[in-house]
Parts: sequence; C-alpha cells; structure tokens
Amino acid sequence: MEDAHSGGYRPFDVETVKAHVAGLPAVAERLGEGSAGLSAREVGDGNLNLVFIVEGPAGAVVVKQALPYVRLVGDSWPLPLSRAFFEWNALTRQAAIRPERLPQLFHFDATNALVVMEYLTPHVILRKELIAGKRFESLAGHMGTFLAETLFRTSDLSLETARKKADVALFSNNVALCAITENLVFTDAYFDAPLNRWTRPGLDKAALALRADRAVKIAAQEMLQVFTTKTEALLHGDLHTGSVMVTGDDTRVIDPEFAFYGPMGFDIGAFLANLLLAYFSQEGHEGADGERDEYGEWLLATVEAVWAIFADRFRELWRTERTGILFARSVFEDEGDGLGAEIALARFLDGLFADTAGFAGAKMIRRLVGLAHVEDMESIADETRRAACEARALAMGRELLVNRGRLSDVSAITSLARAISRQKDLP
Amino acid sequence: MEDAHSGGYRPFDVETVKAHVAGLPAVAERLGEGSAGLSAREVGDGNLNLVFIVEGPAGAVVVKQALPYVRLVGDSWPLPLSRAFFEWNALTRQAAIRPERLPQLFHFDATNALVVMEYLTPHVILRKELIAGKRFESLAGHMGTFLAETLFRTSDLSLETARKKADVALFSNNVALCAITENLVFTDAYFDAPLNRWTRPGLDKAALALRADRAVKIAAQEMLQVFTTKTEALLHGDLHTGSVMVTGDDTRVIDPEFAFYGPMGFDIGAFLANLLLAYFSQEGHEGADGERDEYGEWLLATVEAVWAIFADRFRELWRTERTGILFARSVFEDEGDGLGAEIALARFLDGLFADTAGFAGAKMIRRLVGLAHVEDMESIADETRRAACEARALAMGRELLVNRGRLSDVSAITSLARAISRQKDLP
Repeated sequence: MEDAHSGGYRPFDVETVKAHVAGLPAVAERLGEGSAGLSAREVGDGNLNLVFIVEGPAGAVVVKQALPYVRLVGDSWPLPLSRAFFEWNALTRQAAIRPERLPQLFHFDATNALVVMEYLTPHVILRKELIAGKRFESLAGHMGTFLAETLFRTSDLSLETARKKADVALFSNNVALCAITENLVFTDAYFDAPLNRWTRPGLDKAALALRADRAVKIAAQEMLQVFTTKTEALLHGDLHTGSVMVTGDDTRVIDPEFAFYGPMGFDIGAFLANLLLAYFSQEGHEGADGERDEYGEWLLATVEAVWAIFADRFRELWRTERTGILFARSVFEDEGDGLGAEIALARFLDGLFADTAGFAGAKMIRRLVGLAHVEDMESIADETRRAACEARALAMGRELLVNRGRLSDVSAITSLARAISRQKDLP
Repeated sequence: MEDAHSGGYRPFDVETVKAHVAGLPAVAERLGEGSAGLSAREVGDGNLNLVFIVEGPAGAVVVKQALPYVRLVGDSWPLPLSRAFFEWNALTRQAAIRPERLPQLFHFDATNALVVMEYLTPHVILRKELIAGKRFESLAGHMGTFLAETLFRTSDLSLETARKKADVALFSNNVALCAITENLVFTDAYFDAPLNRWTRPGLDKAALALRADRAVKIAAQEMLQVFTTKTEALLHGDLHTGSVMVTGDDTRVIDPEFAFYGPMGFDIGAFLANLLLAYFSQEGHEGADGERDEYGEWLLATVEAVWAIFADRFRELWRTERTGILFARSVFEDEGDGLGAEIALARFLDGLFADTAGFAGAKMIRRLVGLAHVEDMESIADETRRAACEARALAMGRELLVNRGRLSDVSAITSLARAISRQKDLP
C-alpha cells in the first residue's frame, strides 16, 4: 500500500542529510538557522537502518532513514522502505497515548522513508547499561505503564471497533517485517537454517538438541500461530532492551518499525526475555565470582515489577476505560455484576501471562542460536564462559515456551531463572 | 474502502431487474435472447437483501442485491452496500477451492451491490427440509469437506503469508457485518438489549436467568474475544442451515456476506449449532409422541459426521498441503520428526474443537433469546411446546459455551444433547 518504493528515494549521507533537514521548516527551527552551521554523524548500530544525529547551534535531531535492504546482512536481503511508514504510524499512535515515553516527533517523509525526531541526550541504550551493571529505579514503572496503556488502548477493550479494524488493515501491510519475526523468532532456530549461528563448540550440543526437541518445536510453532493470528493490540513489535533508551530517571521507547496488530504478550514477553538474557549474561561480566549476584537479583526484581506494574495499570484501565466491544459493561456492571467483570479480568490476565511466558521463551532462544544475537552475550570474550551463560539462558527459554501455561505467576519465572542459574553443568 | 455507497446505486424491482440483466452479455446469454421474454419475481426471505429470480427462455439466474439497510428491521438500521463486495470476494475465493459446493457465479456489479449467480433448482433451503424431517445422506460429507478445504486453504497453514495478510486487510473493512455478529451473537442476549425477544411467558425464566449467569456471560465474551482477534481463516461468517441449499444428493453454500478472517471454529460451530437447534425443535413438530425420535438421531449422527469428516479431511490437508508459515515441514518432517507434526495436528484440532463448541453454544443462545430467531422453533405454533423445546436448546447452548474446553470429542456433544432432550422439566 503506502510503500515508499516509488521514485524519489535516496539514502542520505552525513553531507546530504544536513541540506535536507535544513529545508524542513519545523526541523530547521529546532536546529538553528541555516545549514552552514550544522554537523552530522551516522550512528546506526542496529540491524536495519541509517541513523544520523544532526546538530545545529540551537539543538539536535535524529534522522532515521530506512535502507532498502537489511543492513545486518547486506543488499542480498531486500526490505521494503514502507517500514518507515509503519514506524511513523506506530510512533504517532503511541505518542497520543503516552508521549513522555517516546522521543518528540518532528517530521515524516514517506518518499525518503525517513523520520526526524528528538535527539535524546544524555540517554543511553538500556542494553548497554545492563551490561555495565547499572540500575534504573524508574524503569519497571515506566515500562509497565507504557505497555499497559499502549496495549489496552489499542485493543477491542478500548478502541472503537471500526477504528481498530481499519488499523488492523493498515498494519497488515507490514508483511516483510512480520515475516522477519515469523522466520527468525519462531522457525529458523528449530532447523538447520543457513543463517543460524551460535557459540561453537560450547553451545553445539544444546543448539542441535533444539531440533530434536519435539515439545519446544511444537510450542514455538503454537506461539507463531498466536503471533500471526491474534490481532489483539497494536504492538511495538521489537521491544528488546536495544529499543529502550534511559537516563537515571527517564525511559524512552524507540524503533517500532515492526509494529502490527498482534498478541499483547509478544511485547511484554520481548521485554522480559531481554531482561532475562541480561540476567543470564551477568556471570560472564564478572571480574570476581559473585560480583554481579546482587545486580542479577535487581534484574529479576525488575522482571517481577514490570509485570506487576503492567498488571496493576491494566486492571485500572479495565475498570475505568473499558469502552470497547469486549467484556462490555452492559453485560456486567450494568447488570449489577461488577464481580463478573473482575473474574473475567483475572482470566484475561492469566491467558495473557501464558502468552507472555511463551513469547519470552521464543525470543530468548532465537537470540542464542539464530541469526541476530544480543550484545549482553556477544560481549563476553571468553567463549567457554559465554557458552555456559548461553546454555543456561537457552534452558530458561525452553522452559518458558514449553511450560507457558503452567507458570502460576511472575515469581514462578524468576524462581525458575534462579534455579537454572545455579546449574553449572548444562551441556 | 471499496464501498458501493457512492452514486449510481438503485434498488431494483421485478421490472427494472429484467432490463438490467438483459444488458449483461454473460447473463443474457444464459437466459436467452432479449428482455421481452424474461419474467422476474422477488423471493428474498432472509433478513438483509433483495433476491430476484429472473427466468428467460433458455434458463434462469438469481440476482441478489444488497439494500442499504437491514430488511428485517427497516431503514432505521442502515447497513453498507459494500457487503455485496465482500460476498463476491468470498464467493470467488470459495469457488476457487470447491466450486461444486457453490452456485455458479456470473456477474458482480459494485455500483448496484449486486451479484448474479446460478438459479439453483430443485434445491431447497436446508432448514426447511430439516423442519420437514427429511434426510440428506451426502450432507455431512459435503459440508465437512467444504469446511475443511475452505478453512485450511485460507489459513497460515496453506496460504502464502503476504496474500493472507492482504486478504485479512481487505476483509477487515467488512466492519458493519462483523458488528452485527459481535453484538447479536455475543453480547445482546446477555443483557436487556431493546431488540431481544423470546417465547413469553414460557421462556421468561430461562431468558432472564442468562443475564445473571456469570459463567455463561464470561464464556460468551471470551468467545467474542476469539471472534474479533483470531484471523485464522476466511470464514463464511453466517453458516447456518438457511445458508445451505440441498437436493437429495447435492449441497450448495450461499450468502457469505458476513465473510471475514476469523476463527475456523466459528463456521463449524455455526453449522453444528443449527443442526442442534433442529434437533431440539423436533419434538415440537411431532404429531404423535416419539414420531421424530429416529430423525433426531439422524440429526445427531449428522453432527458427529460433519465434525468427523471435517477432521479427516483437515488431517489429510495438514499432511499433504501444509505449505504456509505455520508448523513448517522444515521444522518437523524435514528434521525426521513427522510424528511431531502429527502431535501438533492433534493439539491444533483439540483447540479448534473447543472453539467450535463455544461458538456453537453462542450461536444457539442468540437464536432463542436475541433478535433473529430460527424457523425450526418459530414454526412450532403451540407456545408451550415451543418454549419447552427452546428451554432445552438454551440449556444445551449454555453447556457448550461454559464447558467448551472440557468436551472430549463430538460424541460428548451428542451425548449431552440426548441427556438434555430427556429433561422434561426445564424452566
């Protein structure tokens, strides 16, 4: 549909991007007058796009531009520019719900597949800070609330049904980005896909065992079924700790180009999976034995708090903003059965928790034996130590997937993480 | 989107429709030369549309034209003409899969919201034949196969993902027809909705009890959640026994204007629900006690056979046509784990059966206490007898909804139906 493939697109470089943004009144004003005083640098360290920081006398902006291929792999893997359109549409919807968790948005250019937004400073990518062992006391609150509000308010619990269905249709066109997830997260890790890689030989046994592990394969495919058929809410779609920027007391969520209408548990599970990957990587970053034990406990406490705060805010929204077609007040509260709505809420959250656990497991596994890995593990130089960390993370991912319906609550997840982290002899 | 609201639409009458079809070469050829020799009559007995039979010297066609409002209620309830567009799109997709189960398709006119198709003769609406106590030995096979093929081949088990997502987007615009189902099937029956009606006073107690029945209300809303978020396959969307035409050995499925991508169990459940409504209505059509007992058993055998034949054909398709993104052969058969695919299939059918039971329950209940009723019950003149039949059907619907996850297989459904039909003292 609204693809930007057609004529006029050109990828910018540090010179051409300056002239381009100087010509955008809203952006130029932010930077200060003229393009003469501008400086630009390219800082994209993700897998897909160009990211420029353009600075002027009065301020700075980020220019994110899609490339017509996957940057991580090269132009042998084309990827539509339309993802910038979907990113912009997701950003504007999220900004309407909780603007302080996003960069400020300045400009969208469909032709050049380009978004101009606030340069966040002194914000740092959360993943890097977790590797460094830093704590963020506002993180769980910010993320739990952001998740609850963005997911609830774009679901049939809240959104008017014609608007929701139109939005489902719009984001259904984000096919190529969904296909990346469908393949990389749920399928490739479980057979001999050409781009799979893992720490060799340390993780060989565990990685190959996945392909013979019927329970985990079926579970992964069942979660794929949920992913590809459950149009529950507008998802960020790639909510790992590299999509979150933080300062001591601020949190911003960036990069929703994988956005589509999918199962709520996918976003929550993605974030928890990456906290758990950070947890299992900690031993690899220790100078002395046990040095990161307390930090690991902080990470697990954060896992618990994200879910708890999410669930609390979700309950509050269920009670006060349930204006959509699902679980209508006419059937419960208006018939004097407020308790019925509360029981339905508890059942809803139970189902959502199972989805969350399953998706968290799938997201962990694919980062260990699939194409795209995480710096938390990759930055462990000693391959024997890294493989040991990864083997435990892989075991955790497997349990989350296979037992997603049997985990009573989030403390069952953190208890399991502790138990697995004590296993020093995993294959 | 492709709505037909814009200029040019006019509802036809028996005179104007003749001139119109005479001007359509493909149709005129079918009818025989000129409009002079044509005759037309309007036979629409459904809730929504005009239906003309136009006959000429060489043959006859059916002209189905949408009205801009709900025929059952009147022009106070507007309904978009675009439903003819969705009907046509569903018909052509189903015809590509299993043409012999549909009328032959001749012409679509978006402006006039009109479909021209084969005049089926001597076919009769299945519902009327079930009221008359007639048996159709090919019915279960035809319907089970049609359901398996149309649902499998439009799902992520088969369809290429870009095509499926484009189709999900297209049918997402069938908002108004989905809204009818969302309200009438899942919600209105469970509160004091203005258009509800039921056999009074015989069914008063049972109808009012629904509104205080927390378990059934939660179950109905959970099925609504599945209905509105699970884009599993292209559904007919309204597959009751009034949407099926039969002869002694032929079966045709008509009227898919409610089509959208939804949960497979909704179509299967709709058809089974209407067979069960027919079953519970039989006592009301008896001249002498027990006169319809054997026929009732044939109806239950048909319920079992529809599911069994559906499941058999679905298994066959799973084994031979599983080319979509779900449960890919690369993960199972190609890794030497064909048994894994079989176990995943069994689990898939288990989940589908629970959906089917739940939707069947919701569809039964709404036909007893909601706006639109079924002739199976309405044609029972004695209101006391009718209320007795309806009370048993209502009890059945409730059990299917509330216990949808606890019914081991289709024989559990038919056993339950027999047990409930023996209850002569329901409220």
